[in-house]
Amino acid sequence: MPTPWELRFANRTQRMKSSFIRELLKVTNQPDVISFGGGFPASELFPIEEMKAACDKVLTENGKKALQYTTTEGYDPLRQWIADDVNKAGLSVTRDNILITTGSQQALDFVGRIFINNGDRVLTESPTYLGALQAWNAYGPTFVTADTDEDGLVTDNLEGLIKQNIKFMYVLPNFHNPLGVTMNLERRQKLIELASKYGVPLIEDDPYGKLLFEGEPITPIAALDAKYHGCNNGNFEGNVIYTSTFSKILAPGLRIGWVIGPKEVIKRMVQAKQGADLQCSTFDQYVAYEMAASEWLPDHIETIKRVYKERRDAMLQAFEDFMPEGTTWTTPRGGLFLWLRLPEGCDALELFPKAVEEKVAYVPGTPFYPNGGPKNTMRMNFSATNPEKIREGVRRLSVMIKKSMA
Amino acid sequence: MPTPWELRFANRTQRMKSSFIRELLKVTNQPDVISFGGGFPASELFPIEEMKAACDKVLTENGKKALQYTTTEGYDPLRQWIADDVNKAGLSVTRDNILITTGSQQALDFVGRIFINNGDRVLTESPTYLGALQAWNAYGPTFVTADTDEDGLVTDNLEGLIKQNIKFMYVLPNFHNPLGVTMNLERRQKLIELASKYGVPLIEDDPYGKLLFEGEPITPIAALDAKYHGCNNGNFEGNVIYTSTFSKILAPGLRIGWVIGPKEVIKRMVQAKQGADLQCSTFDQYVAYEMAASEWLPDHIETIKRVYKERRDAMLQAFEDFMPEGTTWTTPRGGLFLWLRLPEGCDALELFPKAVEEKVAYVPGTPFYPNGGPKNTMRMNFSATNPEKIREGVRRLSVMIKKSMA
Repeated sequence: MPTPWELRFANRTQRMKSSFIRELLKVTNQPDVISFGGGFPASELFPIEEMKAACDKVLTENGKKALQYTTTEGYDPLRQWIADDVNKAGLSVTRDNILITTGSQQALDFVGRIFINNGDRVLTESPTYLGALQAWNAYGPTFVTADTDEDGLVTDNLEGLIKQNIKFMYVLPNFHNPLGVTMNLERRQKLIELASKYGVPLIEDDPYGKLLFEGEPITPIAALDAKYHGCNNGNFEGNVIYTSTFSKILAPGLRIGWVIGPKEVIKRMVQAKQGADLQCSTFDQYVAYEMAASEWLPDHIETIKRVYKERRDAMLQAFEDFMPEGTTWTTPRGGLFLWLRLPEGCDALELFPKAVEEKVAYVPGTPFYPNGGPKNTMRMNFSATNPEKIREGVRRLSVMIKKSMA
Repeated sequence: MPTPWELRFANRTQRMKSSFIRELLKVTNQPDVISFGGGFPASELFPIEEMKAACDKVLTENGKKALQYTTTEGYDPLRQWIADDVNKAGLSVTRDNILITTGSQQALDFVGRIFINNGDRVLTESPTYLGALQAWNAYGPTFVTADTDEDGLVTDNLEGLIKQNIKFMYVLPNFHNPLGVTMNLERRQKLIELASKYGVPLIEDDPYGKLLFEGEPITPIAALDAKYHGCNNGNFEGNVIYTSTFSKILAPGLRIGWVIGPKEVIKRMVQAKQGADLQCSTFDQYVAYEMAASEWLPDHIETIKRVYKERRDAMLQAFEDFMPEGTTWTTPRGGLFLWLRLPEGCDALELFPKAVEEKVAYVPGTPFYPNGGPKNTMRMNFSATNPEKIREGVRRLSVMIKKSMA
């Protein structure tokens, strides 16, 4: 029987579910568990001393302003820094194309808020970022899913899907969460052409783009689209809405992300943010700006890349050394995650309690598929664990998997 | 003709409007304008040195944790501090009854998100807080409005309204925004009895409660309701959902608020927050906790109260000295605002551009009425301006008003 509160809750609450990952993290946060589950950056690399200096500078020079309300759009120098930064990558924006959000998660929520009517069809990769599904489920979409492979979203059959009255498409082109794969240039180009042909907005989610370990960076979809539409001098138009964050290059605890889009879209998002929470922390925006505009940030990003690459390599080597035959995995060129496929017949969800007993954790792959998917997959995070522990964790995992197959 | 983007936006965007106040503030933010328009705390009172010390302590002692992701619910010591604080006022909660939100604005958005179906009837005071209307409009409610007077919400005819299938009631009992009035104890008691009789949730919005200038504090509605339902030892049940914030006693730029409710409600709000933005700034929560738990906070609040009372008194005196006959106003016992009623026939919205010409600003009263209201009203903020400027601003306003009446 429903409780009195359940009788009062809005219909949309029936579609809202607790985050599988966030609930799981509560189980695995014990210090003796080797966790490949979260999406945590390496906290030992956080720029703590630099942050101290930034806080002190902000409070000394701009204390009254940094603690007061500010505009919903965000702190202008920060928006300008972001505009300058993405323009280097080929976008053509001004700060008026940018809204500061509480991490890129809030940008995804606003995408849902301004686009999704109940029953609308949203095209995602399969698998895709769980947080996007969670943000959008409250708005009642139906998910149409496109296949993925080692080069990201497969575009061969995409036109047939896009024709199906799609409200928007959502892609994670760089070091995909959860897959770790990167969409190649040819597919990006194909994607913007199809978006343009059918007038479908294209959400580019790029939280990890700056964490490229090897090879050349691939042009952002937003930049390809800006070029395709002949944008110049900050006249950003076209179909792409781009989101990113400081969570992976500075610190996730600051909750400073941003969304970039045509002015008309940003105007609607600003209205959404006014109703949702007025604005992001003024103080965190000032502090993030000081760190973003610092001389040390490029070196700091190099350090993160070097450390994460070592960790990725440690994980790949441990797979080679320990995993049973029939196990396959992706080889990310950057980011925080890779994707592991266990031998046929293994069930990563079923194995999870055994893994926790063995003091090792991961995220089972099934929840990342909007419309269901293989059970023998798991997302593995390599950024938050040092190489020795990664090796030990993978060993424990392999023992458990082999036992389950016996 | 609608633009291509307008054709793509969700239906709810047609109900989303830019905040009148936030747009207005852009006009009046010039330094030579005396603005009674915003809801800004006095920035010269911000605890900047104390904040520096708190940032330094947090980063030195807990840097890695304070910059990392944390739970959606919020930083536990902060939740515990809030629980202890409200329990002193007669609530009976544990930290599990508390979710940390991005200001109390986000708590209002989550109220809309978990309760309002399109077309639901929501009961508010008339006038009421504009930000609540803006948060909820996206969810498509119909507003049913109850009258107010010098003692807050008028409860005489309330039962007739509550019977009309109301989804929830929303009240601002202390130093009401925009009215500045305080609901008396008898009415609070009547309100919780009606809420209980008809099973209607009651949202108590209390951002200014600690800023009482004179007289005895009145028991929070949440405490009366907890007592009415026999809650003890942290077993908080009943109909009240309570929200408050550090914006008015520490700094609004931190964006740290909270919502308190029965565990079942908080659980739904946590799900809402997971989808909306994962969590508030970990760093700001650590820093806010350091300041909240400090020895200096009580003295700091006394200082704010003393300064705001002086400013209120300066405004009241200036009204006496300058305003034309037929002008009336409320006399707030605390908070940041009062409500001014111009002589019949004056139109505060029409006068606004003239006021800006005269370098003085306020917020016209009409937008605060969900279903329309008198045009001769305005909200006046007294917290952000010193007594001399208040006097000069009121004088300018009075000259302009008299001129318009001539």
